[in-house]
Amino acid sequence: MNGAGIISLVGAGPGAADLLTLRALRRIEAADVVCYDRLVDPEVLAMCRADAERIFVGKEVGANAWPQERINGVIVAAARQGKSVVRLKSGDPSVFGRACEEIAAARAAGIEVEVVPGITAASAAAASLCTPLTERGETDRIVFATGTCKPGDAAPDWGAMLTPGTTIALYMAMHRLAELRDNLLGAGFAPSAPVSFVASASKATERRLETTVGAMVEAAAAARLGNPAIVFLRHPKSQAAALPSAAPLRVVRG
Amino acid sequence: MNGAGIISLVGAGPGAADLLTLRALRRIEAADVVCYDRLVDPEVLAMCRADAERIFVGKEVGANAWPQERINGVIVAAARQGKSVVRLKSGDPSVFGRACEEIAAARAAGIEVEVVPGITAASAAAASLCTPLTERGETDRIVFATGTCKPGDAAPDWGAMLTPGTTIALYMAMHRLAELRDNLLGAGFAPSAPVSFVASASKATERRLETTVGAMVEAAAAARLGNPAIVFLRHPKSQAAALPSAAPLRVVRG
Repeated sequence: MNGAGIISLVGAGPGAADLLTLRALRRIEAADVVCYDRLVDPEVLAMCRADAERIFVGKEVGANAWPQERINGVIVAAARQGKSVVRLKSGDPSVFGRACEEIAAARAAGIEVEVVPGITAASAAAASLCTPLTERGETDRIVFATGTCKPGDAAPDWGAMLTPGTTIALYMAMHRLAELRDNLLGAGFAPSAPVSFVASASKATERRLETTVGAMVEAAAAARLGNPAIVFLRHPKSQAAALPSAAPLRVVRG
Repeated sequence: MNGAGIISLVGAGPGAADLLTLRALRRIEAADVVCYDRLVDPEVLAMCRADAERIFVGKEVGANAWPQERINGVIVAAARQGKSVVRLKSGDPSVFGRACEEIAAARAAGIEVEVVPGITAASAAAASLCTPLTERGETDRIVFATGTCKPGDAAPDWGAMLTPGTTIALYMAMHRLAELRDNLLGAGFAPSAPVSFVASASKATERRLETTVGAMVEAAAAARLGNPAIVFLRHPKSQAAALPSAAPLRVVRG
């Protein structure tokens, strides 16, 4: 009983409406149904057609979360009616967007599905700071990690990820800053090592903070920074020797 | 002697003109001078004003490269004349874009500089494959790495980066596939482990290839895939035990 419906997982970008791609804007303007959650900025949502059906699929970590299966069910049911369904996802659907589940649900229902990429928060945050994620000869590797893993997963070892030459952009980790600080200090980083925060990158409410590993918990609390935010950590190659233990990090098995 | 010139480092995205952001399009349309290199798609360049001055700053790895200092000089000189200068960079200026050098040159000359983020190739490639970079419970860490480091830098150890839960998007590495294969096999990955390629993501000439670690060198050569391309490597948590050595990877110092 499938019509010619289609599900587009569309990157809504970090917030500012002018950081939508042209393709995303066209999909939003053409959509019969737009499903969105609390991380999608109202400025972006305002670009829907006036007669488009807007469905709030209240997914947000923690508060009043819809189970993923319920979201899958809503988008598949709308597409089955032959509608053009846009599932707006803040940032880029491919980055911490749980797009796999929605793609699988569409395919299981025999419905065409596409992904329209978006600007991810780390990219917008780096642009706001005017501090690129890579610097030739200093950082040539970028890690996007999250402070919000699947319940039961082992805690990430951020200090171990921060090998020489690496920039880490940490998503959704504002509730774990003390753990992050202790982890970095335990890995040998100096309390004076720089840390940057960008909360609500690109939005009118954007806040930026430059601090240090040692002071970051108190500084972020004093500035009342919360999720969504990006925490930037850097380990330039030229500073690798500044670690208390100058021996290089290496990966071993066992 | 500075005028009111400004330098905008604008992400031209991966190629398709409709993957520009609205902000990037506005900057391009308003620019007096547009500096571009060979990785910027003609489709994007066509969006400049007819009377805009277009300057080819022929930067491409290897062939006829302009030294970075010469590019810096051109954009600063144009901005000093009070012009709106757009420096188009393929993808996202913050990702392997050498934007640090151009930002520093602008600041040293007292010229206002901004970064307009763009869709990076890995994001466009993941969207084309309809295969997100993260999958809840399987991959919750993304590494953007490059096969084209600063001459003299130590060779990256991709196998060591590919810890359980990691997706690697490897940029500009098509000339080092044999080394990549040997590195992964040496780290214990099976010859049958999947590898995906997306060359010229989002462009009319986009090519996709799904192959394996063991076959990738020959398969990419047979398909005549070259840079720019993204190589995707994944190590889902559920397959961590499938490595010949089941002991977990860990990072040690020394």
